[in-house]
Amino acid sequence: MAFQDGGTRAEVAPRIEDLRRALRTEALDGALLLHATDVYYYAGTRQNAALWVPVDGEPALLVRRSAARARAESPLSDVRPFPPGRELAALFGRARRVGLCFDVTRLAQWEWWKKHLRAIDFANASAIVRRQRSVKSAAEIEVMRRGGRALARALGEVPDFLKTGLREIDLAAEIESRLRRAGNEGSPRLRAPNLELFTGLVCAGETGAEPGAFDGPVAGRGLSAAYPVGPSSRTVKRGEPVFVDYTALIEGYVLDMSRVFAVGSLPDDLSRALDVAIAIQDELAPLLAPGQIPADLYSRAVDRAEAAGLGGTFMGAGDDAARFVGHGIGMELDELPVLAPGFHDPLVAGQVVALEPKFLFPGRGAVGVENTWAVTPRGGEKLTPLPDGLVTVP
Amino acid sequence: MAFQDGGTRAEVAPRIEDLRRALRTEALDGALLLHATDVYYYAGTRQNAALWVPVDGEPALLVRRSAARARAESPLSDVRPFPPGRELAALFGRARRVGLCFDVTRLAQWEWWKKHLRAIDFANASAIVRRQRSVKSAAEIEVMRRGGRALARALGEVPDFLKTGLREIDLAAEIESRLRRAGNEGSPRLRAPNLELFTGLVCAGETGAEPGAFDGPVAGRGLSAAYPVGPSSRTVKRGEPVFVDYTALIEGYVLDMSRVFAVGSLPDDLSRALDVAIAIQDELAPLLAPGQIPADLYSRAVDRAEAAGLGGTFMGAGDDAARFVGHGIGMELDELPVLAPGFHDPLVAGQVVALEPKFLFPGRGAVGVENTWAVTPRGGEKLTPLPDGLVTVP
Repeated sequence: MAFQDGGTRAEVAPRIEDLRRALRTEALDGALLLHATDVYYYAGTRQNAALWVPVDGEPALLVRRSAARARAESPLSDVRPFPPGRELAALFGRARRVGLCFDVTRLAQWEWWKKHLRAIDFANASAIVRRQRSVKSAAEIEVMRRGGRALARALGEVPDFLKTGLREIDLAAEIESRLRRAGNEGSPRLRAPNLELFTGLVCAGETGAEPGAFDGPVAGRGLSAAYPVGPSSRTVKRGEPVFVDYTALIEGYVLDMSRVFAVGSLPDDLSRALDVAIAIQDELAPLLAPGQIPADLYSRAVDRAEAAGLGGTFMGAGDDAARFVGHGIGMELDELPVLAPGFHDPLVAGQVVALEPKFLFPGRGAVGVENTWAVTPRGGEKLTPLPDGLVTVP
Repeated sequence: MAFQDGGTRAEVAPRIEDLRRALRTEALDGALLLHATDVYYYAGTRQNAALWVPVDGEPALLVRRSAARARAESPLSDVRPFPPGRELAALFGRARRVGLCFDVTRLAQWEWWKKHLRAIDFANASAIVRRQRSVKSAAEIEVMRRGGRALARALGEVPDFLKTGLREIDLAAEIESRLRRAGNEGSPRLRAPNLELFTGLVCAGETGAEPGAFDGPVAGRGLSAAYPVGPSSRTVKRGEPVFVDYTALIEGYVLDMSRVFAVGSLPDDLSRALDVAIAIQDELAPLLAPGQIPADLYSRAVDRAEAAGLGGTFMGAGDDAARFVGHGIGMELDELPVLAPGFHDPLVAGQVVALEPKFLFPGRGAVGVENTWAVTPRGGEKLTPLPDGLVTVP
């Protein structure tokens, strides 16, 4: 078996070394990784497995299914079928304080592991793992460049099929079919509980400004109360914003971008709000550089929106407004850093951020722009290459 | 705002009454539901919310986002914005033993709730909720009939676009585009940790028998090690099985079915194995009736496969073989009952089961059949209406 790995095999050893350094700083004897995306990051395989990384000694990948495929994919030397619970204590040896990601571990999993590892105290290692994963290597950024080009190409084709009378879900089917052929592997992985997004949003007119469960400014109406996120059966009309926000998961990395389309033209005030969103992006993008403070970038965006007289519509309205203007992105859609109040750790070169200044007009729709950017010493590098402005079709 | 609800509003009150009855039996003072699918089941809205159901007194839906939409969707009378943590103790009143689903609750969530509800002991209520959700009402079965027809229609169109030289991912894009237009809301919801499936599998030739992470007999090669489930870039050749296994999430309910296609014909032994799979299905389907024992149905399928000389290939080979022949399905893809060893609770009318006898031939591919069936006193009612046999194109 030969599987395309996006360069992951070569990255595993340095990632494990970085993890060990962070574990030592926190006086932890090792980390137990149970979340599939974390296991993939540190082991190079996304089989159903648990990964034990002691600060000293060889990591062990314990595979529920499939051990054969995990062995073919992972560069780790100790890849074995998941052992009986009674053998785990010996494997963990003298470890006493072990890191575990409390944000993604289920209570039932924790109870199972505690039962078999009675001598061990688990400490929350989520911050360690999330901090490490937020900073991408050159190889990871290169994978994300490829994914960004594929996503941008698909959104660039929207004018080829946009017309009045189509349902949001019809437009979604066109976009998703193009993304799939271009290598979209699945839904964007999300770390937070209860968040889900099939692939993206198409919001024609007012559905772009309706309240929803999704943790972004725009959620979409969805097809039913059962899935209140994404495209609905609302049809496209002339002269309204068709807000398109899509992700792609390509070679294991998520990309995220939004553009606004219209049949005919947009009302002047919405068109002006879109220009303001792009101006906010263009002001923040050069500041996506090491040392900048996420919370300050958020304040700057809010100030600029207020100066343009659009403060009340920035990122939503009232209780349902989103309180951020950008989010880290990588193997998951909801990574660090978040450009929001309370986030004061300076940006680091290699972080990747989806920057999404948007304005919501209740009853009328959403306008704004979103691109995925790499943080570099020269400011943000745009990974989703496509012009930012309104695209209209006759 | 008016949202299509698939009849969920009218179901909420009886569901809560059934839950309370089960909680009383276990001497619990109430249940705290945190998992979005459970919240939707008991509250009729899938906004980001927590649901407190005391055995006596009004349920309270505590909504992080969006309270406005949750109020429009839920028939519950107490729907409120998520309160500050310090107000929770008063809301939970004299409750001391509270049910919580340990299988879906994250450690970090549990720690947060424990901090604010110091007087409360949480007990695992997963079995109560999973048992209740496994038995569907007449209204739920009717929604699943609609979903099943939509899924069957999409798979029925595969011969319209199947040809040699297409990649598995190209076929997937065609199927997924049809499903989306027919109302597919998103990926099948999965309760178990680390399981994911974008929508389905297309496996041309040997990829149908390669080992993978997914908890079914067939996983698919996927596009990279990052997403080792589903279609790959392998192209279709003449004379091999093109194994197609798809789900649809329609009005909140998952449907699941598989069929085998071929350009030209299948080798005789594979064609015969497919006939045996269909014979196993046809033998078990009338037994999808109240009182039948899931483990016995599994044994019967294994015996039949062995009698046909196909024991070593039934549901996979070696360590990676799946040890079940069917699984409960409803709002999630992995529900109760499981037709597998160890499952001895008799079937109940209203349960819904995806029955999937399949044979895997390493290096050559997968053949088999899968339909979604409702358990009725007259045996299984097929919810995915499409002929079961091999479909070939010239």
